Amino acid sequence: MDAEIITIGDEIVTGHIVDTNAAYIAQQLTGIGVDVKRVTSVGDSLETMVEAFRLALKRAAVVVTTGGLGPTDDDITKKAIVKVFKRNLIFHEEVLADIRARYAQRGIDMPAINQNQALLPQGAKLFPNRIGSALGICLEEKERIFIALPGVPVEMKQILTDSVVPFLQGVNAHAALKTLRIRTTGIMESRLAEMISPGLKLEPGVRLAYLPSYGGIDLRIMASGESADNADAKAQRLARCLESVVGRYIYGGNDDTLEGVVGQLLKDNDKTLAVAESCTAGQLGMLITSVPGSSAYFVGGIVAYSNDVKTSLLSVDPAIIAQYGAVSEECAKAMADGCRKQLACDYALSVTGIAGPDGGTDDKPVGTTFIGLSSAHGSYCRKFNFGTHRESNRARASYAALELLRREILDIR
Amino acid sequence: MDAEIITIGDEIVTGHIVDTNAAYIAQQLTGIGVDVKRVTSVGDSLETMVEAFRLALKRAAVVVTTGGLGPTDDDITKKAIVKVFKRNLIFHEEVLADIRARYAQRGIDMPAINQNQALLPQGAKLFPNRIGSALGICLEEKERIFIALPGVPVEMKQILTDSVVPFLQGVNAHAALKTLRIRTTGIMESRLAEMISPGLKLEPGVRLAYLPSYGGIDLRIMASGESADNADAKAQRLARCLESVVGRYIYGGNDDTLEGVVGQLLKDNDKTLAVAESCTAGQLGMLITSVPGSSAYFVGGIVAYSNDVKTSLLSVDPAIIAQYGAVSEECAKAMADGCRKQLACDYALSVTGIAGPDGGTDDKPVGTTFIGLSSAHGSYCRKFNFGTHRESNRARASYAALELLRREILDIR
Repeated sequence: MDAEIITIGDEIVTGHIVDTNAAYIAQQLTGIGVDVKRVTSVGDSLETMVEAFRLALKRAAVVVTTGGLGPTDDDITKKAIVKVFKRNLIFHEEVLADIRARYAQRGIDMPAINQNQALLPQGAKLFPNRIGSALGICLEEKERIFIALPGVPVEMKQILTDSVVPFLQGVNAHAALKTLRIRTTGIMESRLAEMISPGLKLEPGVRLAYLPSYGGIDLRIMASGESADNADAKAQRLARCLESVVGRYIYGGNDDTLEGVVGQLLKDNDKTLAVAESCTAGQLGMLITSVPGSSAYFVGGIVAYSNDVKTSLLSVDPAIIAQYGAVSEECAKAMADGCRKQLACDYALSVTGIAGPDGGTDDKPVGTTFIGLSSAHGSYCRKFNFGTHRESNRARASYAALELLRREILDIR
Repeated sequence: MDAEIITIGDEIVTGHIVDTNAAYIAQQLTGIGVDVKRVTSVGDSLETMVEAFRLALKRAAVVVTTGGLGPTDDDITKKAIVKVFKRNLIFHEEVLADIRARYAQRGIDMPAINQNQALLPQGAKLFPNRIGSALGICLEEKERIFIALPGVPVEMKQILTDSVVPFLQGVNAHAALKTLRIRTTGIMESRLAEMISPGLKLEPGVRLAYLPSYGGIDLRIMASGESADNADAKAQRLARCLESVVGRYIYGGNDDTLEGVVGQLLKDNDKTLAVAESCTAGQLGMLITSVPGSSAYFVGGIVAYSNDVKTSLLSVDPAIIAQYGAVSEECAKAMADGCRKQLACDYALSVTGIAGPDGGTDDKPVGTTFIGLSSAHGSYCRKFNFGTHRESNRARASYAALELLRREILDIR
């Protein structure tokens, strides 16, 4: 079953927002064996939208759109739907009552403009929105399925997961496409490719892709077969082959995250963690606590952006900073040790580095980062050079710190 | 001058990554008066890619692609270019030398696979990549401009900003499109629309859009006119009208960020800031320090995820937590006061809330967040309810804290 995704909004084609929706939808559809052939983004023009809807409905069995369902004047997706499908908009009393109740719960009067949200195309299946006021709209006609979702990412995601995916799974029960993701960290894409390529022979219908992000490189396997079992077997064979070659860099698969894997390890071992952050300034703590339930093992942290805080709260000896600098192996170790004592936990991670754009020297260029780890067994430190970009340096340092801890707990050297 | 953007990669159409590149490119092109009509994403299939390139070159004067320029086997954009433009790939000795030197600087041997990066289409203008090894490629033929950029966002951005934008500005010197962005925070989209809509009359050729994000709502003005001056005057007239209606929610325009604006205010007033974070767990500190040079005013922070850390490091009276709970006005104020003392700074912000998905009660549902502010004038607290989504709650709390400080410094109540 082929699908096309259309994301709508001037804000997308003018680049005022990043379209995260297309990726999320594509991932969910791919995961249930729907083959996304194309993603198109168009502006808030009725004409362009109608043309794009018609073209997509010609080419694909499923069309999913996001955006343009809001209450303001620039939201015209429903107008385009009505035009393409030749239907009227109908007022839904119960939808309005529900939206009003939602506002009341937050202690806010519903702005009158939200009444627009209760106008919906005649004959549409409606998918509930638990977060916001724009419902998902689904129309079926001539063996085509057209689904319109709101553009606000959390709302789109909720409707997609709760309603659209189960609905399409019912329609597309016999797909034979298997996707697997193998998640690696701590190794460059080109190194990974050099380890994998020499011995690699892909079976027919199997594809392997390298997907880099700040957290590491994902290896994405896509296998198609005559049956679901056949596709699955092909994907698993390649996965086992990759594991045998680059296993030491693999921290998980599919929906695993490094922060989730490390959190589970801490829970399983009944250990607690705290962080001492300089250049990352909170990003590592944020990453760790992006996992719901992380309060079971994460105690807290100290953001020691200034040297004063490093000495006062983390008890780093001022002589260390004077002699080696705040960005040094010695300081990273002292930060981790001080943090572990101050916050009374089993493990402490520290990060100190030069995120850039300024502050680099010949000895310690921008990107130089020291990551320390303190535990009952003592402390140690690893030096990294992540490159020249501030945002990238901070993100990569956060993931590298988690990987250091994962290897410590699992005793991988 | 019309443009189309094509982003390339199985990882995009299967949704394994979010395509942030299209937005960035669209924004930059729009900013110099190039009219982006369409964004298309296609997978790593030579055939689809060639078809998409040809179609885009038929419709638009400028085509910008990203992705598929990496060193691994799944990177085939150069093959598609060679096919569409009927040219050969030529080996560039000097490009390879440069890549090798870059690796040497980081103390790493260049993986041999990177030699591919020195193979480039004959007759192409090359745009330097200061961060990675894939150069930007530009081909001009029959009044069409085709530009291929790498898919790694920081690399794409650098090449776009340093080379592509100046190049296209030279080609498109007479555009008459003006885009302005007015950035608001602390008010819902529908409320903003209710304030703006009644008195709003748009001049011909002027469009207004509401662009929501975690940080607030942006008002985006696009004005086209017979001349640059004319377009600019139209945009400015609307901007002044919006300022008169919703001025108290406006913190900046265009490339301003809330964290940047607040940072500048602190610098201008020679004040320092620290943070005490519970549910945001570092995100506020990370946001503040995403501004280069923030060490001039940001001292550091305490991530008090556990109650123990709230009492030990922030000196919150355990009786406050026992009587009112850790998520309370009293606790938020005590956290801010404790933080300001502990870190010896002028202002301290605190965040304590229930980010979800668990932990909500009838009294304090998920999303309930208290933000405290402590200064020499005493401390106060504001209560928020951001909704039910963990990631959104944490992000919105971080921005709300910054807005609280902005209003404190500017004395806006």
